[in-house]
Amino acid sequence: MLCFHSRQTVSLFTLVGPLDQSLEPKSFKITCSVNQVPAPVAVQTEEAKNKSECFGVFCQTYDLKAEEETKSWKKLINVAVSGAAGMISNHLLFKLASGEVFGPDQPVALKLLGSERSFQALEGVAMELEDSLYPLLREVSIGINPYEVFEDAEWALLIGAKPRGPGMERAGLLDINGQIFAEQGKALNAVASRNVKVIVVGNPCNTNALICLKNAPDIPAKNFHALTRLDENRAKCQLALKAGVFYDKVSNMTIWGNHSTTQVPDFLNARINGSPVKEVIKDHKWLEEEFTEKVQKRGGVLIQKWGRSSAASTAVSIADAMKSLVTPTPEGDWFSTGVYTNGNPYGIAQDIVFSMPCRSKGDGDYELVKDITFDEYLRKRIAKSEAELLAEKRCVAHLTGEGVAFCDLPEDTMLPGEM
Amino acid sequence: MLCFHSRQTVSLFTLVGPLDQSLEPKSFKITCSVNQVPAPVAVQTEEAKNKSECFGVFCQTYDLKAEEETKSWKKLINVAVSGAAGMISNHLLFKLASGEVFGPDQPVALKLLGSERSFQALEGVAMELEDSLYPLLREVSIGINPYEVFEDAEWALLIGAKPRGPGMERAGLLDINGQIFAEQGKALNAVASRNVKVIVVGNPCNTNALICLKNAPDIPAKNFHALTRLDENRAKCQLALKAGVFYDKVSNMTIWGNHSTTQVPDFLNARINGSPVKEVIKDHKWLEEEFTEKVQKRGGVLIQKWGRSSAASTAVSIADAMKSLVTPTPEGDWFSTGVYTNGNPYGIAQDIVFSMPCRSKGDGDYELVKDITFDEYLRKRIAKSEAELLAEKRCVAHLTGEGVAFCDLPEDTMLPGEM
Repeated sequence: MLCFHSRQTVSLFTLVGPLDQSLEPKSFKITCSVNQVPAPVAVQTEEAKNKSECFGVFCQTYDLKAEEETKSWKKLINVAVSGAAGMISNHLLFKLASGEVFGPDQPVALKLLGSERSFQALEGVAMELEDSLYPLLREVSIGINPYEVFEDAEWALLIGAKPRGPGMERAGLLDINGQIFAEQGKALNAVASRNVKVIVVGNPCNTNALICLKNAPDIPAKNFHALTRLDENRAKCQLALKAGVFYDKVSNMTIWGNHSTTQVPDFLNARINGSPVKEVIKDHKWLEEEFTEKVQKRGGVLIQKWGRSSAASTAVSIADAMKSLVTPTPEGDWFSTGVYTNGNPYGIAQDIVFSMPCRSKGDGDYELVKDITFDEYLRKRIAKSEAELLAEKRCVAHLTGEGVAFCDLPEDTMLPGEM
Repeated sequence: MLCFHSRQTVSLFTLVGPLDQSLEPKSFKITCSVNQVPAPVAVQTEEAKNKSECFGVFCQTYDLKAEEETKSWKKLINVAVSGAAGMISNHLLFKLASGEVFGPDQPVALKLLGSERSFQALEGVAMELEDSLYPLLREVSIGINPYEVFEDAEWALLIGAKPRGPGMERAGLLDINGQIFAEQGKALNAVASRNVKVIVVGNPCNTNALICLKNAPDIPAKNFHALTRLDENRAKCQLALKAGVFYDKVSNMTIWGNHSTTQVPDFLNARINGSPVKEVIKDHKWLEEEFTEKVQKRGGVLIQKWGRSSAASTAVSIADAMKSLVTPTPEGDWFSTGVYTNGNPYGIAQDIVFSMPCRSKGDGDYELVKDITFDEYLRKRIAKSEAELLAEKRCVAHLTGEGVAFCDLPEDTMLPGEM
């Protein structure tokens, strides 16, 4: 492993092959390089606990077909969740089971992915799901092998990620978590439904989503999302507070770019009571200088207050992101989600995962919104987030199968309060 | 303070007046006595943070009346929650805000009661509720004074309670928490809606509910509940597992008595697929010797697995308990809740809070189910739980205004996994 190290960035890559000597750091001050290596293939052991298995009462046989007929229920939907023993999942799983996301006529199968370390906690979660007697929750299985757990998944909610260790920089986190998402991409590609919808929550989520989709070439790249909905929700709330209105009056809120401190909550296109934000909030200095920081620092403030990160509202925002794809978007409005940029009408670089404004017919798919206004200020900030994501992409080239990685991340842009 | 102490029971009472010498311990081996004292009056300080105040975006003015008309929304409902910064509340509050409990046309005001120590965490919870943008959540206020927070409450969910300290026995817990519930009862009596429905979750919940209702003489005693719904849910799940059916096939499940190890999950009257349990589960030895223990030990097993107590499924069961009172009970079925025993048709002692089978028309009220079968085995176990609750009642007489307290709790019957 070879690392050129100065300023704040350290990169930790596992070097598997010989160093590629042709790599030229060019003008970058900080670079790390590793050879392009085939991304790791998951080891498929035959141990019992490696197998994804139905849990407890959910192993009972029952005639769901009869219920599909008598109750006009839809066909069972398979939802896989990674990091299933964590706090975000502990909120989200019960929302999925209750019918809050997919509606009262949609039976649900939950496929929970944990780790060897968290396996007992995973059993605990499954037991609490048993004890909740949700009529729509028809199957629960738990496992630690993504090739088992993701089988036939129609949704994959990728929440699990390694937290940042002491002294670890964003580049190190990118590599460590990137490896997880490369493996999970391969697993999805191998066993999931051919039209699986994937929402990546584990950070850094945009680039993790890019890694994941690159490792799942048989699944449409369009199906991969990076979660920026919590940022959107927080931005709406801050605009409502400033304008002195209730939050349901704020619409057309876009988060552009990376789920990091370079994210761009767009107050140029957002509306309050149907009017442009800048017509309602006359304090443009606040919009330009304080608003974005308020949105970004929310997670950090919450950790200070509450002593842990915001699991409940993150879970709410994941549910919101899913509902936005399975419910028609209200006329004239849109929502934000980090998606693959190929073919975007905004001039944003191709081949990254970038949060942009979308609309859905409620069929699980989406289209980008066309009538968006840009000004110099907005363009400049979008370009900064774009540059960051391009740098992150270069940093994980060894995980996307696109050559030799080198890191030139200019600074650490993790959101406060995030791992 | 005078304590006669032997075996396992210790009682810790705060003695305020001179000892009543007329107290005769009679045949009890272990007794504690305190003078009957007027229950403490809450100190109403004028400090700002003692005041219950609207939080953040929920302080915005908006025309809810217009929405009541245009969206056919119901009138705003006030729900007070104590222990609002705790883990159970962290699940429950989002269910209440989402419409899962009261339905999609019922706007909700949440009034959160915390403590001085938890006040910052309470702000954190309110911030996460802000960021969740629930359209039905129209007001959130936080405070540490029940006389402020309970004002006009139509529901009071009393979750907060002191956990058991090292070496503290049930009698000690009864007194410490009893004082909290006496004060909260007085506060409800002073400021809550005259028809407030109260669900006591903080343990020991049956006797806490009794203390609470005794301190709220202007509110119908019938309106007070002690939560045994998690026990009911767990019992249904265990019967389903044993019978090899899905849990939605189990009905008519009663938990009788105290939320403690003397609770009686009733397999005589419960049904599976409409048939008596004993006809479906032929292993009567399992029913008599293992089933009850499986239900009771569930919380302890969960703590082992999951490392903390079962907040999520407890919150689900509180939501279930509320839904059972605001939704008509399905024909032929019933649910369990700990309620005041006056006028019960089962021969259970008057003037305690005992879990029994109930039905509701969905108006917030309930009636006891009449057609219940008893056998010797069921009677005997109900009598044991009844005796325990009568003993607990004697133990807290100083908090119910009914004379001199003395404790003769035969053994520690806290449920494993509970505080």
